[in-house]
Amino acid sequence: MSDKKKVAVIMGSDSDLPVLKNTINTLKSFGIPVETHIMSAHRTPAQACEFSSHARENGFGVIIAAAGKAAHLAGVLAAHTTLPVIGIPIKASTLDGLDALLSTVQMPKGIPVATVAIDGADNAAILAAQMLAIADEELAQQLAQMKENMTAEVVAKDQKLQQEL
Amino acid sequence: MSDKKKVAVIMGSDSDLPVLKNTINTLKSFGIPVETHIMSAHRTPAQACEFSSHARENGFGVIIAAAGKAAHLAGVLAAHTTLPVIGIPIKASTLDGLDALLSTVQMPKGIPVATVAIDGADNAAILAAQMLAIADEELAQQLAQMKENMTAEVVAKDQKLQQEL
Amino acid sequence: MSDKKKVAVIMGSDSDLPVLKNTINTLKSFGIPVETHIMSAHRTPAQACEFSSHARENGFGVIIAAAGKAAHLAGVLAAHTTLPVIGIPIKASTLDGLDALLSTVQMPKGIPVATVAIDGADNAAILAAQMLAIADEELAQQLAQMKENMTAEVVAKDQKLQQEL
Amino acid sequence: MSDKKKVAVIMGSDSDLPVLKNTINTLKSFGIPVETHIMSAHRTPAQACEFSSHARENGFGVIIAAAGKAAHLAGVLAAHTTLPVIGIPIKASTLDGLDALLSTVQMPKGIPVATVAIDGADNAAILAAQMLAIADEELAQQLAQMKENMTAEVVAKDQKLQQEL
Amino acid sequence: MSDKKKVAVIMGSDSDLPVLKNTINTLKSFGIPVETHIMSAHRTPAQACEFSSHARENGFGVIIAAAGKAAHLAGVLAAHTTLPVIGIPIKASTLDGLDALLSTVQMPKGIPVATVAIDGADNAAILAAQMLAIADEELAQQLAQMKENMTAEVVAKDQKLQQEL
Amino acid sequence: MSDKKKVAVIMGSDSDLPVLKNTINTLKSFGIPVETHIMSAHRTPAQACEFSSHARENGFGVIIAAAGKAAHLAGVLAAHTTLPVIGIPIKASTLDGLDALLSTVQMPKGIPVATVAIDGADNAAILAAQMLAIADEELAQQLAQMKENMTAEVVAKDQKLQQEL
Amino acid sequence: MSDKKKVAVIMGSDSDLPVLKNTINTLKSFGIPVETHIMSAHRTPAQACEFSSHARENGFGVIIAAAGKAAHLAGVLAAHTTLPVIGIPIKASTLDGLDALLSTVQMPKGIPVATVAIDGADNAAILAAQMLAIADEELAQQLAQMKENMTAEVVAKDQKLQQEL
Amino acid sequence: MSDKKKVAVIMGSDSDLPVLKNTINTLKSFGIPVETHIMSAHRTPAQACEFSSHARENGFGVIIAAAGKAAHLAGVLAAHTTLPVIGIPIKASTLDGLDALLSTVQMPKGIPVATVAIDGADNAAILAAQMLAIADEELAQQLAQMKENMTAEVVAKDQKLQQEL
Repeated sequence: MSDKKKVAVIMGSDSDLPVLKNTINTLKSFGIPVETHIMSAHRTPAQACEFSSHARENGFGVIIAAAGKAAHLAGVLAAHTTLPVIGIPIKASTLDGLDALLSTVQMPKGIPVATVAIDGADNAAILAAQMLAIADEELAQQLAQMKENMTAEVVAKDQKLQQEL
Repeated sequence: MSDKKKVAVIMGSDSDLPVLKNTINTLKSFGIPVETHIMSAHRTPAQACEFSSHARENGFGVIIAAAGKAAHLAGVLAAHTTLPVIGIPIKASTLDGLDALLSTVQMPKGIPVATVAIDGADNAAILAAQMLAIADEELAQQLAQMKENMTAEVVAKDQKLQQEL
Repeated sequence: MSDKKKVAVIMGSDSDLPVLKNTINTLKSFGIPVETHIMSAHRTPAQACEFSSHARENGFGVIIAAAGKAAHLAGVLAAHTTLPVIGIPIKASTLDGLDALLSTVQMPKGIPVATVAIDGADNAAILAAQMLAIADEELAQQLAQMKENMTAEVVAKDQKLQQEL
Repeated sequence: MSDKKKVAVIMGSDSDLPVLKNTINTLKSFGIPVETHIMSAHRTPAQACEFSSHARENGFGVIIAAAGKAAHLAGVLAAHTTLPVIGIPIKASTLDGLDALLSTVQMPKGIPVATVAIDGADNAAILAAQMLAIADEELAQQLAQMKENMTAEVVAKDQKLQQEL
Repeated sequence: MSDKKKVAVIMGSDSDLPVLKNTINTLKSFGIPVETHIMSAHRTPAQACEFSSHARENGFGVIIAAAGKAAHLAGVLAAHTTLPVIGIPIKASTLDGLDALLSTVQMPKGIPVATVAIDGADNAAILAAQMLAIADEELAQQLAQMKENMTAEVVAKDQKLQQEL
Repeated sequence: MSDKKKVAVIMGSDSDLPVLKNTINTLKSFGIPVETHIMSAHRTPAQACEFSSHARENGFGVIIAAAGKAAHLAGVLAAHTTLPVIGIPIKASTLDGLDALLSTVQMPKGIPVATVAIDGADNAAILAAQMLAIADEELAQQLAQMKENMTAEVVAKDQKLQQEL
Repeated sequence: MSDKKKVAVIMGSDSDLPVLKNTINTLKSFGIPVETHIMSAHRTPAQACEFSSHARENGFGVIIAAAGKAAHLAGVLAAHTTLPVIGIPIKASTLDGLDALLSTVQMPKGIPVATVAIDGADNAAILAAQMLAIADEELAQQLAQMKENMTAEVVAKDQKLQQEL
Repeated sequence: MSDKKKVAVIMGSDSDLPVLKNTINTLKSFGIPVETHIMSAHRTPAQACEFSSHARENGFGVIIAAAGKAAHLAGVLAAHTTLPVIGIPIKASTLDGLDALLSTVQMPKGIPVATVAIDGADNAAILAAQMLAIADEELAQQLAQMKENMTAEVVAKDQKLQQEL
């Protein structure tokens, strides 16, 4: 399966790594090849532009970007690629992530960022898998299985609750 | 190209149609087949579940859902499919679209919605095209061309401005 | 009193159980039969729809639904029943419950959700009792007694305060 | 049907009447007897307390209260009755109704207000009907019929859309 | 000085007492007679109305009311008196006090509440003293002295800082 | 009545005059002497400080200050006087008055501003009258009369509504 | 004065030009040379980076950037220069400019943006002049004169008001 | 280098000192002379006005002001000088710094405050250095070096991450 598209997981700061561990692990659980980078829209703009500009030709299918505060990273990456870019707004020490959410989702016409919930690390991975699965029946099967597992897990919890209450 | 994946454009109310015209037209400009429906998470939940549950087997690659206020439509559709679902929060008569944004983007773990800006009708279409273009080189070329055109347009406006000021 | 209407207490995740314990206990203190379930609008939508669709014929009078973040649960349950649905927005790790509040209360025309305060577990139970008491004089008496007790409790605290200060 | 419970529709100011016309008309369409009053938590507190204190014995089953800004009306009425009180936050000239929403919904423990969406006049009426229908099979049938009509209306709009696009 | 106007300090719940200790102590430091009560707009509305209706004739000059969440207390007291009512919005477990602030300050035309900052216990006392000092030259002198002390304290801290840095 | 305390009505900009006309007229309706000024915390800080510093000795009892955006005016005036200062947050072209509200009400310890609702021009006047009436029985009577008139007006509107509906 | 530093006025879209006319005119009124460009962080990122990277060596002293929604422009320009960058958040069709404000001001450590008020076009120009005037005594004199004129204008308005009222 | 412009670091309360230590240290790392003061817009307004009025003639080039809640300090200082004033909104115990941000940034026409992020102590220092560096080539070189160091630091972290994952 060496021709599988990779997913890039880019974080604006290494302080975001704990949150993104969930993204990386979920992607790997689907067998999706992952490449992780620390790149900042503001501190390493050249590296970010360079990476994004060549991401498609370098075998990436989706870019996931996580950043807090005035979270420009996803938007700046999206400016340099035609790949879909998923943005994870990260909650920082003030404003509860609202600044990162608005900075990520309110993109102007022409350059979308597919935004997930504040600190939505798992969902970013699942969304990336869904994008790749549009043309990958096997991955689609894995997603369907994950959905069934989720359902079964909730049903089991509900049954357990009936016995406890 | 009869085997091209379709994009579903679902709106919660026919009052959202004027905004979604931009989504439909942008998708069509890429040659992407579009199917448009009025379906409500609350008024026609059975129809919405039914549509979403069979969307993949019916040839859809992406679902776009637009709704205002407590915008549950995108999340409800996402609950029944492994296709990526793009949510457009619609600005209604109060709260400036903030309610629709939070109802759309803050999805719990397991069921992501790829959220674009409030009233971000064009960007939803471009994002859908980007998703389809992961495995469609020709569509990727069209997106690259659109990007170049956008750049050229801004550059031209800048040059015109230099002459006017 | 075997023909008493039941109240369903539905939570989107078992993490909401500690908050809902107050709801369950308050309902039981009124002698109202309670049935509690973990059901998710997104992870077990079929179960949620099924439950809600048959709730009235299964002897329920009111449904209470608690969920956090993009809290669709109450709205999705309300879509499938003519019973009154009470929504409790749950405060999650970001945005202080505002996302759950707006996702629960801002329901579109036709499908109301009777929303109580963020984490308002007790009040959801009292509101359910008030609804059932419209046609249940005995329960109305219990509510009147509870009100008197509350008043007496505050009056006693005020008198105690006068001695302390 | 002379023993039908009445619904009280109370507004804080006559400027709220245009919004509440929808509430009154929807209630009447269900054949529910309605009594409408202008009463202010702040300008006619005695009248409001008096009305609420005797509402149950005067044949009311539900009280609907609409107010804007620091909307205390629903809470103040709820303080004096064991009937369920539905609050409609009204959007005033500033803050887009957020002040009225929070003033209505964030009630302290013991005194719930069943809050609907900002300016949610129709839904307040439907919610009142749902409450009354807990013990009124005929009204429950009417609500079920209304739901079917809503569904049929959306389905018809969707079919019309298919022909137009 | 037995004819000095009293200040009433009313709290909606005994959980507000720790915050209000500052109010009481500051008032006492000015030699202003204080009477403190726990009274709830919702749980003891009769007591609150009764107190407020007779506050002027009972020798009060100002009423201070503190409450959290949907903070109706100040407004309800203000409805029954022509005395100035000062409202302290109390920060509760969600929304950071914004709900209490808007519920307190956004009073409709005719019934003002003099609102201070969220948890602004000291300032409520100072504001009450300022109101009483309009016609009390001695109290005005005390306030002027307090102002001078505050200034001197900040100046001293600044001088100390110069030596430390 | 030449020894009546005056009320100062200070606005940050002449664009606030239309709103403040209500303040001035309401004060005059109580027979309270009014002096109105345009003074800016930022454009005429010396004038503002000067005015406030000497307001008490110049016969003022209360200062009302209205400003929009980063509304510092009330706080700056309060810094220079021991008179109570009432702040009216003015709604400007963005943020719906929330900026002015927070800038006015969230005063630090030591310097309160008695804040009324956004654009609450009438209530600022009534609050000033209430402050002056603490020691002015005649003015207290006028306020009581105004309250009775308000009540009568609402009662009359309610009676008219009964005939119309 | 041919060696005077220039100020760059960059807008993300030509729709921002009407607001920025005030910036340009105010700068010109100080005799500051201005260069205006339409450059987008997302649609012409290369042009924006290029401009900013060489701005200092091309004779600029300050960059002013205006953008709406997820306003990344100021931050992206700041990433490529050591010149001070002033950000003007522009109010767009939703959220009243709050998204642009937070996207502009909440910059991460290392890359500041000097943010002025939403739509604060004049103030951006004055701030740029203040920066240039640190080392330009003549410009400082002009600013002092402007301040005096502002004061005189407000004083004159106040005097006129005294005659009118 | 005795003729270097100084930067004033003014805080409204000594509780802000821990945050401002970063400002002071960053300024000193650039060799910029710093003078630090505790001055309050409300508690020592005379000292604040006096300081600001003479700051330019006393050798200052930039003023940095930090304050929380209704943060008037930066605006009040800006009212008395033609020097650029940088405002740092400080997060206090409620509202997560939003009150301080709006009070600082939303300055009216004529008196800008260069606002940085909530608690943005480092960035205030860097912005001050950028302002001084407009006419100071050596300082500009230091800023460029700092930028390179930041880039190198992020690149190194990224390389380390590649080895770890």
